Amino acid sequence: MPKRIKSRKSKIGVAPGSLIHVGEHVNDDVKIQLISYNEDIFNKASYENIEKCLSACNNDAINWINVDGLHEVEVISSAGKRFNIHPLILEDILNTTQRPKIDIDNNYIFIVIKMLYYNKDIKEIESEQVSIIILKNYILSFQEFQGDIFDDLRRRLEYNKSNIRSKGTDYLAYSLIDTIVDSYFDIIENIGDSIDEIEDILMSNPSNEILNDIYKFKRELIFLRNSVWPLREVLGKLVKSEYELIDDKTVMYLRDVYDHTIQVVDIIETYRDILSGMLDTYLSSISNKTNEVMKILTIFSTIFIPLSFLTGIYGMNFDYIPELKFKYGYLVFWIITIFCILVMLNYFRRKKWL
Amino acid sequence: MPKRIKSRKSKIGVAPGSLIHVGEHVNDDVKIQLISYNEDIFNKASYENIEKCLSACNNDAINWINVDGLHEVEVISSAGKRFNIHPLILEDILNTTQRPKIDIDNNYIFIVIKMLYYNKDIKEIESEQVSIIILKNYILSFQEFQGDIFDDLRRRLEYNKSNIRSKGTDYLAYSLIDTIVDSYFDIIENIGDSIDEIEDILMSNPSNEILNDIYKFKRELIFLRNSVWPLREVLGKLVKSEYELIDDKTVMYLRDVYDHTIQVVDIIETYRDILSGMLDTYLSSISNKTNEVMKILTIFSTIFIPLSFLTGIYGMNFDYIPELKFKYGYLVFWIITIFCILVMLNYFRRKKWL
Amino acid sequence: MPKRIKSRKSKIGVAPGSLIHVGEHVNDDVKIQLISYNEDIFNKASYENIEKCLSACNNDAINWINVDGLHEVEVISSAGKRFNIHPLILEDILNTTQRPKIDIDNNYIFIVIKMLYYNKDIKEIESEQVSIIILKNYILSFQEFQGDIFDDLRRRLEYNKSNIRSKGTDYLAYSLIDTIVDSYFDIIENIGDSIDEIEDILMSNPSNEILNDIYKFKRELIFLRNSVWPLREVLGKLVKSEYELIDDKTVMYLRDVYDHTIQVVDIIETYRDILSGMLDTYLSSISNKTNEVMKILTIFSTIFIPLSFLTGIYGMNFDYIPELKFKYGYLVFWIITIFCILVMLNYFRRKKWL
Amino acid sequence: MPKRIKSRKSKIGVAPGSLIHVGEHVNDDVKIQLISYNEDIFNKASYENIEKCLSACNNDAINWINVDGLHEVEVISSAGKRFNIHPLILEDILNTTQRPKIDIDNNYIFIVIKMLYYNKDIKEIESEQVSIIILKNYILSFQEFQGDIFDDLRRRLEYNKSNIRSKGTDYLAYSLIDTIVDSYFDIIENIGDSIDEIEDILMSNPSNEILNDIYKFKRELIFLRNSVWPLREVLGKLVKSEYELIDDKTVMYLRDVYDHTIQVVDIIETYRDILSGMLDTYLSSISNKTNEVMKILTIFSTIFIPLSFLTGIYGMNFDYIPELKFKYGYLVFWIITIFCILVMLNYFRRKKWL
Amino acid sequence: MPKRIKSRKSKIGVAPGSLIHVGEHVNDDVKIQLISYNEDIFNKASYENIEKCLSACNNDAINWINVDGLHEVEVISSAGKRFNIHPLILEDILNTTQRPKIDIDNNYIFIVIKMLYYNKDIKEIESEQVSIIILKNYILSFQEFQGDIFDDLRRRLEYNKSNIRSKGTDYLAYSLIDTIVDSYFDIIENIGDSIDEIEDILMSNPSNEILNDIYKFKRELIFLRNSVWPLREVLGKLVKSEYELIDDKTVMYLRDVYDHTIQVVDIIETYRDILSGMLDTYLSSISNKTNEVMKILTIFSTIFIPLSFLTGIYGMNFDYIPELKFKYGYLVFWIITIFCILVMLNYFRRKKWL
Repeated sequence: MPKRIKSRKSKIGVAPGSLIHVGEHVNDDVKIQLISYNEDIFNKASYENIEKCLSACNNDAINWINVDGLHEVEVISSAGKRFNIHPLILEDILNTTQRPKIDIDNNYIFIVIKMLYYNKDIKEIESEQVSIIILKNYILSFQEFQGDIFDDLRRRLEYNKSNIRSKGTDYLAYSLIDTIVDSYFDIIENIGDSIDEIEDILMSNPSNEILNDIYKFKRELIFLRNSVWPLREVLGKLVKSEYELIDDKTVMYLRDVYDHTIQVVDIIETYRDILSGMLDTYLSSISNKTNEVMKILTIFSTIFIPLSFLTGIYGMNFDYIPELKFKYGYLVFWIITIFCILVMLNYFRRKKWL
Repeated sequence: MPKRIKSRKSKIGVAPGSLIHVGEHVNDDVKIQLISYNEDIFNKASYENIEKCLSACNNDAINWINVDGLHEVEVISSAGKRFNIHPLILEDILNTTQRPKIDIDNNYIFIVIKMLYYNKDIKEIESEQVSIIILKNYILSFQEFQGDIFDDLRRRLEYNKSNIRSKGTDYLAYSLIDTIVDSYFDIIENIGDSIDEIEDILMSNPSNEILNDIYKFKRELIFLRNSVWPLREVLGKLVKSEYELIDDKTVMYLRDVYDHTIQVVDIIETYRDILSGMLDTYLSSISNKTNEVMKILTIFSTIFIPLSFLTGIYGMNFDYIPELKFKYGYLVFWIITIFCILVMLNYFRRKKWL
Repeated sequence: MPKRIKSRKSKIGVAPGSLIHVGEHVNDDVKIQLISYNEDIFNKASYENIEKCLSACNNDAINWINVDGLHEVEVISSAGKRFNIHPLILEDILNTTQRPKIDIDNNYIFIVIKMLYYNKDIKEIESEQVSIIILKNYILSFQEFQGDIFDDLRRRLEYNKSNIRSKGTDYLAYSLIDTIVDSYFDIIENIGDSIDEIEDILMSNPSNEILNDIYKFKRELIFLRNSVWPLREVLGKLVKSEYELIDDKTVMYLRDVYDHTIQVVDIIETYRDILSGMLDTYLSSISNKTNEVMKILTIFSTIFIPLSFLTGIYGMNFDYIPELKFKYGYLVFWIITIFCILVMLNYFRRKKWL
Repeated sequence: MPKRIKSRKSKIGVAPGSLIHVGEHVNDDVKIQLISYNEDIFNKASYENIEKCLSACNNDAINWINVDGLHEVEVISSAGKRFNIHPLILEDILNTTQRPKIDIDNNYIFIVIKMLYYNKDIKEIESEQVSIIILKNYILSFQEFQGDIFDDLRRRLEYNKSNIRSKGTDYLAYSLIDTIVDSYFDIIENIGDSIDEIEDILMSNPSNEILNDIYKFKRELIFLRNSVWPLREVLGKLVKSEYELIDDKTVMYLRDVYDHTIQVVDIIETYRDILSGMLDTYLSSISNKTNEVMKILTIFSTIFIPLSFLTGIYGMNFDYIPELKFKYGYLVFWIITIFCILVMLNYFRRKKWL
Repeated sequence: MPKRIKSRKSKIGVAPGSLIHVGEHVNDDVKIQLISYNEDIFNKASYENIEKCLSACNNDAINWINVDGLHEVEVISSAGKRFNIHPLILEDILNTTQRPKIDIDNNYIFIVIKMLYYNKDIKEIESEQVSIIILKNYILSFQEFQGDIFDDLRRRLEYNKSNIRSKGTDYLAYSLIDTIVDSYFDIIENIGDSIDEIEDILMSNPSNEILNDIYKFKRELIFLRNSVWPLREVLGKLVKSEYELIDDKTVMYLRDVYDHTIQVVDIIETYRDILSGMLDTYLSSISNKTNEVMKILTIFSTIFIPLSFLTGIYGMNFDYIPELKFKYGYLVFWIITIFCILVMLNYFRRKKWL
């Protein structure tokens, strides 16, 4: 949890708009990649320096600048100056504890979104913040770590298979968001499979660990919901309002992603309901089992404790215990014993304990 | 669950609008049926090829094209081209993991709805996605599997009993939706009967299996609600807004289906409330039973354990135990014993344990 | 439950507007009563035939046609034709599984409402559907069974005590609804009394049956809420909008019924909260009791089991047990025993178990 | 409860607007008090007769008529006729089971509000209905019982300390409501203190009675919320809309009471959350204790039951038990016994039971 | 709790607008600090007397008057008269039990906000009410106690590092609120760390104290939410509406704080969900443990109680017990004993208890 439901490092007294990186520090270099394209051209290049990258941009094309790594504050501040981005926006990019949000300005749209990965080994969701700034001919994307899920998209851009190169930055932004939302379904499928397994165990032979598993997935779903739920609002805002930067035709596509987001939220809520139901069922089944155990103990005890008392009596060393002298005393003892056992067994059978 | 709360197969990096069938694959051929009708004519024919079907359409009549089976992507793409359907819509038809939705375009209305069947053998709800596209003179319906519940509707169309043939595609679409929603009541009735049975068992002799049954129906109801709840929105949108394709007179009918949908949702919520109440009651009744079992054990133990101790004392082999020599020792022992038993019984009676 | 949370008999494939009676079938004849009144006249007559009744109507007066029994479909269909009622409305009248609803047409308002009776013997609420159609000079009311709670209203109409005869159909409709809503308070009072009784038992000596009682009333309240909650919407619609058929002065009265409905819903929710609180309290109190029982068992066992072991030792028949030969062996045994008992009692007293 | 969550006595069939007193009957006389004041004059007088009181009113001043006791229906009906109040309003005044409500007419505003008292002896909230009618120069207030919390307000009016005498009926009405809402804080403080006590007990030594206390305060809070929550709506309506009778300057004051009401509701919800948390904690702590008790029982039993079996063996009277003849038999027995005890203790220590 | 979920001291009958300090009384002197600044000048001075402070204000600069301590009512009333503040506002400043609120007047904006501190020793949140009044050239802030978190802000003002001195009172107010909201993240981080610790204990070895910890943090979160939730509304109002006193450019900054507030509320709700999940898990794990304990007890008891009975039989002193005379009686006894033990062990192994 500490790493995932992160809160901002306390920045009390720091001037707003001050650029401070809040997040996991990595040692990798910041990697800057520029893809310039239109229907005719496609250029892909990597830079270590933001200035060079900016000067390499092609004004006749759409320029997608992707920055991997946020720990070099100057990169963000240079880009911010170049495109006249509000300092608070830059602060938001650097602060990786944002919830998904949208900020709309006259000449750009700023979107924060969470890229999620499912770590199958520890069965935990890992999160990376992606910030996207949509401008007229530029699109800036900022990621925390190197390596992402946009490679297929880059290939589609390069090999001209799709009509994506004839469209604007809004469509590219849509493609980025769509890719991320699509990846959510992957996570959900993984969690769904795990929940199925838990359910099978619950139905057959619920062990102790099931409890921790239920708790764990409940928490993963809370985390997932927190990452996806605000995105619904973000996309809803993008779809409902009218902005110059967003083409009418792209709105149709954005509505599609919006629908997917709702679907994801729906499934998350369903899974949470199911997990809650499981916990209730588990608790009841444990109570049930305790009841069963108690019955066995009680049956044995109530049969044998009185009989042991009986044996105790005739084990006493009183000088005068007349029964001990009877010839058939021992036989009568056994008759009484067996009679008692039968009476008790009958009693328990009538109580449906047996 | 895995088959029912399906999530989209992960399609990361695939271009939006790419037609890929997401769902259960079947080996049957795709079956295409065309029904052309107006007040005078009625033609019904089956085709294996979408092109032939499309060329057989009668422009003076209303043409209902029903496609059973989604695994031949070309069928959907041909129909899409012919009627100028947006690629994202076609993608939605092929992806059978949609939640019920509506998309309204200038010249068509697209509706996704879930056809549900109750499998009495395994007491589970099974689901099939139906997509309906309403155009001016055409209505396209896409189903996952062959065989449906529209046969009565077809008969009504053919034998002219009803006034349905004098009406437009909007009324036919209404009839399709109405048939599906009516079938929901059937499922609800079946579940209601099962819940009644569970309740009877709960009240008389709650066994262990009741727990799994409650859990199971809780899950079925979650699944059912997820299929019906979004339909409410879909129909609400259809009823409230004004579209050229929907006649004012049909709106009255659609409002009727809308009411039915709300009724279904209502009953589902009621059943969920009842099941939750059952689980609480069951848990309390188990605790209660454990308490009863404990009381029996405690009564027997507290009476006989001290007495056994007493017998133990006089079973000891100390050389000098004066009581053993007393003439009435054994008699006194019994008097003490019976006195103890009476005191304990009285104690338990005052505690209302007996 | 099966009789009360009824769902529509499955009518898949039946044309919408087909008149089929869905509900409990009764053998009584359908009883049709006509009351014609204005400030001067008052006529009350019963008919077995709807045509005769319709022809007996007085166009200068207000005509209240009350139909008891829905199993003769022709009655409803004749009335429907005469007053030009939409087939779907007629279908709704016949289907007694409706939730309270309102449908507003140009020349009539259609209201479905639930008349509820509290059966004190089985402590269950019984329900009867009442449909009311308000027209300019006519009011039609349809009930499932004979006998109702409108007799006082009829008497007020007849003996001219109130000013009701000088008012229109809207005021009569209000009077009908008001009478029904007033009867809800009666039911609530009965349930409230029962809940009081349960509470007294809960506080003093919670027995096993209390659980079933709590569950039962929880279910009755769910049923009651389902009958009353939608009525709130119905009346809200009637109050807020402006219809020609509803006089401005009557709106004031309708708002009063609306307030009462809210009050009923409020009390229902309060009772549900209280019952939930009771169940929680009961569960905790059972756990508490089990804990008490366990303590008693544990006190007795932990005191006497070790002592029994001690007696067992000196009851052994080893040839050489030196303690047995000691003169004061038996005395020492008792001293140890009493010491052990005192230590244990002290231990339990410090643990606050005694 | 029966006295507090009162429902209307069933009045089925009674004409709406019929004046019937619904509430606790008291034997006191109805007390009518008239306070006439403006900046210059202040007259206070009591009457037994409403007519005399009405004729004593001063048209140049603001007249506050306060009626204590509702069982004399004529008083209310006379006042109603004099000020032209709608019969339904009069019915509402007499029916003391109202929830707080507001009714706005052309020439008056009618407000129902609950005056609450905390009875420290039985730790229960008692309720009295206050109805206020605001007219141009008149303010009518109706209370169920004699004695109220308005004495300070009367003193402020009389001794001219405040500027209240220069203001209209709206400000007086505000003062009445403000006084009542202020008194809610008193109740909340009392309940808060009790909850603190319960919490202390819960944390230190939760006894059985805590359960009933939690349940009791939960119920008191439900009752309190039901009395205060609708008041929020009432005041919200008064603040948001524009009425001739309410001066713009008074709205500022009303908004202040509105804020206080929200604050009360907030605290109530907080207390309910806390009580729920307590119940959960209590239930868990009981389970915990049972677990502790069980552990003690199990430790003693598992140590001594096998050992008792061992003593039993060597207490048997078989002719040939070789061990009994061994010289060191008894010594070996003790060694085995102590070894067993140590093994078991170690086992429990490793299980962290000790 | 009593100190934190404070309710207003009962002020029934006190005229509205009466200035009475409601809160913790402190003995410190009231400290008044004036900071006058614009782009050129910066003056900081402390006063013991409000009149002197007011006369020292610089009309060409922005004057920030900060009052520490509310127990000298005259200070507030003098300031109120000077700036023409409504008496109800002054009352609100003095009453430290307010929830965060906003009041907007023609010439000033009044904001109540809670400054929170996390006391790590007792792991409790402590609260201090801060009231801010924004005027054209003046900003008044009132705090309960001396010492605050605004020192960094004062330093930024003084050393001209930031552009804050070129902006108006709205930006200073924003800076104050921003500082407070930033400090919330600090508290949340502390609580988050504690929750992590609880979780670790829960997963490994849940002890009894964990229950009190969960309860305690649940309560702290309720308290925190109550302090932050209304702030959301306050800022929402400030952001959405248009006021002369708030510059358009500052709105962007306020929206940023608004986002942070939502983020805080989000995390609080997440933590509450997690704590609830923990409690459920804990309860289940306790039930589980009790079940385990019961199993051990039952295994030992059901094996040895019947065997003890057997030894009891052959410990009896009947004159005639034939088995005792058998040569291999003792051997047979052991064979039977071991057989019984093996049967029981096998039984428990099949039941998966071992």
